Amino acid sequence: MTTHDAIRQQHSRGEDTSTPTLPDGVAFVETTAEVSEILKLCHQHGVPVTPFGAGTSLEGHVNPVRAGISLDLSRMTGILEVNAEDMDGLVEPGVTRQQLNEYLRDQGLFFPVDPGSVCTIGGMCATRASGTNAVRYGTIRENVLGLEVVLADGRVIQTGGRTRKAANGYDLTRLFIGSEGTLGVITKVRLRLHGIPEATSAAVCQFPTLADAVNSVITTMQLGIPVARIELLDEVQMAACIAYSKLEGYAAAPTLFLEFHGTEAGVAEQAESVQAITADYNGSGFAWARDAETRNKLWKARHDAYWACIAARPGSRGIATDVCVPISRLAEALLGAKQDIEESGLMAPIVGHVGDGNFHTVILVEEGNPAAMDAAWELDKKIVRRALDLGGTCSGEHGIGLGKREFLEAEHGMEAIAVMRSLKAAMDPRGILNPGKMFRN
Amino acid sequence: MTTHDAIRQQHSRGEDTSTPTLPDGVAFVETTAEVSEILKLCHQHGVPVTPFGAGTSLEGHVNPVRAGISLDLSRMTGILEVNAEDMDGLVEPGVTRQQLNEYLRDQGLFFPVDPGSVCTIGGMCATRASGTNAVRYGTIRENVLGLEVVLADGRVIQTGGRTRKAANGYDLTRLFIGSEGTLGVITKVRLRLHGIPEATSAAVCQFPTLADAVNSVITTMQLGIPVARIELLDEVQMAACIAYSKLEGYAAAPTLFLEFHGTEAGVAEQAESVQAITADYNGSGFAWARDAETRNKLWKARHDAYWACIAARPGSRGIATDVCVPISRLAEALLGAKQDIEESGLMAPIVGHVGDGNFHTVILVEEGNPAAMDAAWELDKKIVRRALDLGGTCSGEHGIGLGKREFLEAEHGMEAIAVMRSLKAAMDPRGILNPGKMFRN
Repeated sequence: MTTHDAIRQQHSRGEDTSTPTLPDGVAFVETTAEVSEILKLCHQHGVPVTPFGAGTSLEGHVNPVRAGISLDLSRMTGILEVNAEDMDGLVEPGVTRQQLNEYLRDQGLFFPVDPGSVCTIGGMCATRASGTNAVRYGTIRENVLGLEVVLADGRVIQTGGRTRKAANGYDLTRLFIGSEGTLGVITKVRLRLHGIPEATSAAVCQFPTLADAVNSVITTMQLGIPVARIELLDEVQMAACIAYSKLEGYAAAPTLFLEFHGTEAGVAEQAESVQAITADYNGSGFAWARDAETRNKLWKARHDAYWACIAARPGSRGIATDVCVPISRLAEALLGAKQDIEESGLMAPIVGHVGDGNFHTVILVEEGNPAAMDAAWELDKKIVRRALDLGGTCSGEHGIGLGKREFLEAEHGMEAIAVMRSLKAAMDPRGILNPGKMFRN
Repeated sequence: MTTHDAIRQQHSRGEDTSTPTLPDGVAFVETTAEVSEILKLCHQHGVPVTPFGAGTSLEGHVNPVRAGISLDLSRMTGILEVNAEDMDGLVEPGVTRQQLNEYLRDQGLFFPVDPGSVCTIGGMCATRASGTNAVRYGTIRENVLGLEVVLADGRVIQTGGRTRKAANGYDLTRLFIGSEGTLGVITKVRLRLHGIPEATSAAVCQFPTLADAVNSVITTMQLGIPVARIELLDEVQMAACIAYSKLEGYAAAPTLFLEFHGTEAGVAEQAESVQAITADYNGSGFAWARDAETRNKLWKARHDAYWACIAARPGSRGIATDVCVPISRLAEALLGAKQDIEESGLMAPIVGHVGDGNFHTVILVEEGNPAAMDAAWELDKKIVRRALDLGGTCSGEHGIGLGKREFLEAEHGMEAIAVMRSLKAAMDPRGILNPGKMFRN
């Protein structure tokens, strides 16, 4: 446990725009037993505990708003098991997806869930993360087989198991996934792994209008083409990426980044189908990136999109909206958001996992400018409200945290929220686990 | 509400071997409001409520062991929405998967979860059902987007939503899926639908030994070939099916039934790969069934496997084991079970969704022969214990109900069971919902 100022500062918020809160202390834990011991004491004394991984949260999850302990799990980086023949593995929560995939590569396996940032597996579980590959491989919800969890009072439980399916009692695994550290602290994760596909190819396609790009996505999804990734960048985001990642030969125009996985024949078949669709929607320059180096450069640019936005407006922070809608409503949601942004006068590049109906606007706000911050939140609310009206959700993958608590109520209704609160009360009767998050007051 | 004797008899158990219990009355409900009204009253007066769908449960779920009301939802058969462009739909819980697929066919869509029997969507949700297509399309857990649920005290909540993914609060949908009617009564289900594949082909392959058949499955799965169905029948089951379903041209030998979905080229590629694997394991007669009629006859025979068993021993009932293990341990689990069966002297055909590591033995027992029943349960326990030792589960898809409550404890440990009980207490404080199931007390 440390009370060093610089360390407490680092644990005062994530990548979000919430007002930082210093924890009373930061505990760097290395074992389940340590986590259990700390929770037991905090439970006894009513001390708040806020779990912390890589600190990449965009929704205030790691901000210890009621002070207490910031529980840093980033040193729990053991890769405990890899069972290649069953394609599963057991890891500690502080392992990052990059570390895991580096470790797996020699065995011909990979873990597909890829939110872009350098985040921990534990944090991904806590926020129900997804990212670019989810359109093909599912989110972390579909790729976790079981968990070890330390409960609020220090008890340790195992959930799930090693089988691909089971009808063996309440689905505790799924209850903890997406619970944002409010129900327990995840100390081990059993993951489902996948074989590295025989063939992979990437492509980039640019469009005269955002509508053309979105309609290409909708058609691709409705035809059931099993693309591995289908990502949209609007012209503002593309301009930022060209500058930040030194992409050459591309225009600052609405763009789709695509990836196909499968057998050689299957990949070619998928790519041809998508190319034909994009041609129908005035797509040009369906450019191939068959070699790994070009592909990696493209996806690194995509993953650095958030940083490219920040770099486009130095000294600013980003408010990332994260709406997700049924695919048939994607054009309305996305073009509506674009219009809202233009009317607001703010800079807010659009980038998204559009195959899932999920997109982000990164609203850039100068730090320390409260008027700009108010305008940004106003824009955020407008975009979310439209998505809800279209049958969507306020969060596809970032979670609720602090900033979206009112939307959670609007989405589910107060009866369902009451059920969630009763589960919280049953699991954490003293309310020590990440208090102030997900629910208002 | 009826108290007619014949109706109460019909609601005294499912297809299982539990001792029948007459409910005090049977309520045939037709609306959510009726369900809510009944639960409100039962909650006030402490009257047990046992939900009932098609009555196909194999684990005693619908046996009203504490009497009270059998709540029959089989008349709630509305198909309320089908959104072809988003591939989702909203149905009432009494709709059977056959009715749904009949309805969807014209729109080029289907619902893949297929436990074989004529069961209701609501019952499938309650037991976390899966069946033959799960190896490719997932179980019902992965194919439900949201639910309407009536809580123990009559409150009605909506869970989930229409988007493919969401990070918006606790995963209540997954909490109710597999809760076996103990946490709430499901009154609407929002399903994920799938496009009918461009091409489908089926194949049958027979083997000299069970080990050869199992090893073919393991290799197929480890190579990641996306088979839609891969089902194993041992020689005893195959003999029963040949007799019951009048299958011609097949031997009473270990057999795989396979199905491939995809594009024309993709299906051919998959089938060639699997044919090569089966040839390595002495498989013979990789027989194609490209026309729909032959395919339907084959799958009907597979689905009637349970009835074929019963017909092979008239006057008997079946105790179905339902273990599931990691794929690498499938040979040990299955060949071990086979040896246990031979040693027991009982008749117990083996059939299974082996691509998921899940298989059933249907232990046939003469009705009213307690010694045979004891021997059958002894065999059942032996098979389950081995599966648990191999990292497996006591139930891949049938659920816990009455017969597997002790295994639930062995699998999860008492701390996790305590968490499940605390959730039950939070959601159903008076314990009226399907009491006596899942937990021993």
